Amino acid sequence: MQAKLDELKTILAEVDDLDRASSVLGWDQEAYMPPGGAEARGQQLGTLGRLSHEGFTAKETGALIEALQKQAGDLDPDSDEARLIKVCARLYERQIKVPGAMVVEKAEITSAASQAWQGARAESDFSKFQPHLEKVLDWTQRFAELFAPYDHVYDPLLDSYEPGMKTADVQAIFDGIRPQQVELISRVAAAEQVDDAMLHQHFPEAEQLAFGEEVISAYGYDWDRGRQDKTTHPFSTNLGYGDQRITVRYDEEFFNPYLFAALHETGHALYEQGVPKHLARTPLYGGTSLAIHESQSRLWENLVGRSEPFWQHFYPRLQKVFAQQLGDVTVDDFYKAINKVAPSLIRVEADEATYNLHIMLRLELEIAMLEGEIAVKDMPAAWNERFESYLGITPPDDAKGVLQDVHWSFGLMGYFATYALGNLVSAQLWEVIQQALPDLEGQIAKGEFAPLLEWLQQNIYQHGAKFEPQEMVARITGSKINGDAYIRYLNDKFGAIYNL
Amino acid sequence: MQAKLDELKTILAEVDDLDRASSVLGWDQEAYMPPGGAEARGQQLGTLGRLSHEGFTAKETGALIEALQKQAGDLDPDSDEARLIKVCARLYERQIKVPGAMVVEKAEITSAASQAWQGARAESDFSKFQPHLEKVLDWTQRFAELFAPYDHVYDPLLDSYEPGMKTADVQAIFDGIRPQQVELISRVAAAEQVDDAMLHQHFPEAEQLAFGEEVISAYGYDWDRGRQDKTTHPFSTNLGYGDQRITVRYDEEFFNPYLFAALHETGHALYEQGVPKHLARTPLYGGTSLAIHESQSRLWENLVGRSEPFWQHFYPRLQKVFAQQLGDVTVDDFYKAINKVAPSLIRVEADEATYNLHIMLRLELEIAMLEGEIAVKDMPAAWNERFESYLGITPPDDAKGVLQDVHWSFGLMGYFATYALGNLVSAQLWEVIQQALPDLEGQIAKGEFAPLLEWLQQNIYQHGAKFEPQEMVARITGSKINGDAYIRYLNDKFGAIYNL
Repeated sequence: MQAKLDELKTILAEVDDLDRASSVLGWDQEAYMPPGGAEARGQQLGTLGRLSHEGFTAKETGALIEALQKQAGDLDPDSDEARLIKVCARLYERQIKVPGAMVVEKAEITSAASQAWQGARAESDFSKFQPHLEKVLDWTQRFAELFAPYDHVYDPLLDSYEPGMKTADVQAIFDGIRPQQVELISRVAAAEQVDDAMLHQHFPEAEQLAFGEEVISAYGYDWDRGRQDKTTHPFSTNLGYGDQRITVRYDEEFFNPYLFAALHETGHALYEQGVPKHLARTPLYGGTSLAIHESQSRLWENLVGRSEPFWQHFYPRLQKVFAQQLGDVTVDDFYKAINKVAPSLIRVEADEATYNLHIMLRLELEIAMLEGEIAVKDMPAAWNERFESYLGITPPDDAKGVLQDVHWSFGLMGYFATYALGNLVSAQLWEVIQQALPDLEGQIAKGEFAPLLEWLQQNIYQHGAKFEPQEMVARITGSKINGDAYIRYLNDKFGAIYNL
Repeated sequence: MQAKLDELKTILAEVDDLDRASSVLGWDQEAYMPPGGAEARGQQLGTLGRLSHEGFTAKETGALIEALQKQAGDLDPDSDEARLIKVCARLYERQIKVPGAMVVEKAEITSAASQAWQGARAESDFSKFQPHLEKVLDWTQRFAELFAPYDHVYDPLLDSYEPGMKTADVQAIFDGIRPQQVELISRVAAAEQVDDAMLHQHFPEAEQLAFGEEVISAYGYDWDRGRQDKTTHPFSTNLGYGDQRITVRYDEEFFNPYLFAALHETGHALYEQGVPKHLARTPLYGGTSLAIHESQSRLWENLVGRSEPFWQHFYPRLQKVFAQQLGDVTVDDFYKAINKVAPSLIRVEADEATYNLHIMLRLELEIAMLEGEIAVKDMPAAWNERFESYLGITPPDDAKGVLQDVHWSFGLMGYFATYALGNLVSAQLWEVIQQALPDLEGQIAKGEFAPLLEWLQQNIYQHGAKFEPQEMVARITGSKINGDAYIRYLNDKFGAIYNL
């Protein structure tokens, strides 16, 4: 068995090397690549992606996995080996169904679609993106058919990002929280409003960066195994063991966008930095699913970084950095300002109370497109209508409406739900952590993040991708993913801020 | 034939994608990678290198090349197709002789050797590098044996970098110029010395960069297809069509190191930017050999960038940037200072008159090591002895002596000669260009570089790697590579500067 396992690991290592090389190329593409390099970079990524897919879906790989599955009964089911075999079998089953030609086809469709999307958004002209979105949709529908029969056409897509989760589960969860979130927002709207004018001043980039680095360092991010660069859209990426980077952007006229995105991406990177070396170069190396990953980014961004104790510690420091802008602002007013609730057009700038509504809207529209209930050409109108009904405002144009997110142009359908699930999981975990670390708030108020990081390390990060998301949440919290804790969190937090 | 050619090009494109991806990973490794990423990066590069080698040396590739060679007689021998087949056949013949295991072995040996070299140089302790250099030497000797019988053990190594050149040719060229360079240096030593104190002042990095960008832009470097970053050692790299980058370093207390390295690397990059798109993703995409490449970097660095007309144009501008440092310095004094001749310890900082002696020294020692005439353990003493005899000074320690260059630790034996050959070729080309562009100096004095770039584009860059170096030089100059023009250039230039 060991010989077969070693043979499998050799293949997996090569596949992982190819995938991480693609990540380096992708990082460079966003961070530094000159515009002239785009076409060649697309070709390079296509070749690496095809070789990775061919290596993993080779008959030899399948035979090894099959042989190992037969012998896996002797292993501790929670051992790295048993889990590796299980995860490989699941991935192999999925990937073997996808013809290589479809992989290449997707690369071509999305390469053109993402370029078209950029132009369409810049000109706020949906018609320029429409034919590309139609191709993406068509490809995605054919992709889903590869996994027929299914309970729901969306299931095979969701399963790419949330192994084991069903669309019906997600819909049930969202149906449960939607009315409560809508009700909270309407109570906030009726309350005395928060003034966040002090956040809309000039905050020079270099000083934002210096303060951000201080917080990120305090969180425990290891700069010897990472770095921070500027991109149009912030992201976090794992370029192989010992190299987990984040990217950020700056708005010098608004305080929030840099810092909270930096803390968000740091949350993702802390997770990846915590996955142990012995899992490297296997499919177990990395986070367990997008929702669990998002639970970590949102935890470090919001439950820590937008909390009162956090600012009790960091606000005096921030006031020194921005003495002119914030010298006369109390910590209480600042805390309320960064947590201001207001329906807004752009998802990535949404406050915690309204954020999930943005997600639900996208999920519903995605499903309707996939089922053929809404034609692509009718998406702008459908978007605006639903936006008005959920958030009470109507986008003035498609750039701030249906065209705002890059995901569909990349072929990422089935992805959005994970953002909202991550919020829910972050609150579920937080309740457990508060019990495990009774002085958690006191520690945060002293700028001590090591106990929190250590808890996450022990309970989540060290396991890499060994457990599926529902299993992971159940092991830690005793129940599956649900919205109760998040609703409690929102009601407590915003009840206090808005005196509800 | 077209079908077979297309099939071959598909393989070549994939191999090129892998190689360019490796270049991106290598660029990042030097420019941005955090230290923690080193081990994983080495694994990724190993996998990409092995897949590229396997792809190119596959039996399928060989069969296609063989079949195409049989039909190539019908083609114009200077056509892209005929040259592609010829170059592929030569590369295939070479690479097929190298077992995959030796490729992997070299990666392992040199990965350890380059780390050891860094430590050994930092501590100036050759004993820490010695066992690694012995392994590199052993591997290189075994590599050379793969190509036996040969005229000279160094031939198979040189042929990696200068296709078609023989060690005997290089030795004959060097033997011809050595006495003349030594004589020039001794006449300079006896003349009134140049004062370069004004170059050793504080020149802030940001202002050096801004001035450098201005010159690089004037040269015609296309920033939409390139960029400039900081690394420990400057280099130029081609990451695929439309993406040719340079890297630089700064010394804020000495004017020369940034600017002339930047112009040097720009010379390499201009060459690569000039290779046309239809050669991309084939072995014809890139410079023809290291010597021809170096002829371009040295041409733009020295024959242009260290010339009087260049500074007639740029010096007033430089004086504005560094008014405090250079406001009182005449252009003539500045021109002499940047061209000061003085035997020095470090090759990369050597002036034009002494530079080639550094190279000859290395070539002779490399050959003696390969022939077993000098043992690795005796290299520091042999180095110092020869250095004293050629340049009249003795390195105070091994860091400034035998340990100064990174090349051997990377397994780059057979490489050094190309630096000196590049100098010679740059002067050979310059004499031809001066005839083709009678107003060349006048154009440079007006900051007009387009005619020069256009000439190089037409005569060199557009051909990519279609012609071997001797053939390329002969086509342009009517004679093979030789030192006559370079000796004339040195005597004229330094005769004027030193009133010889």
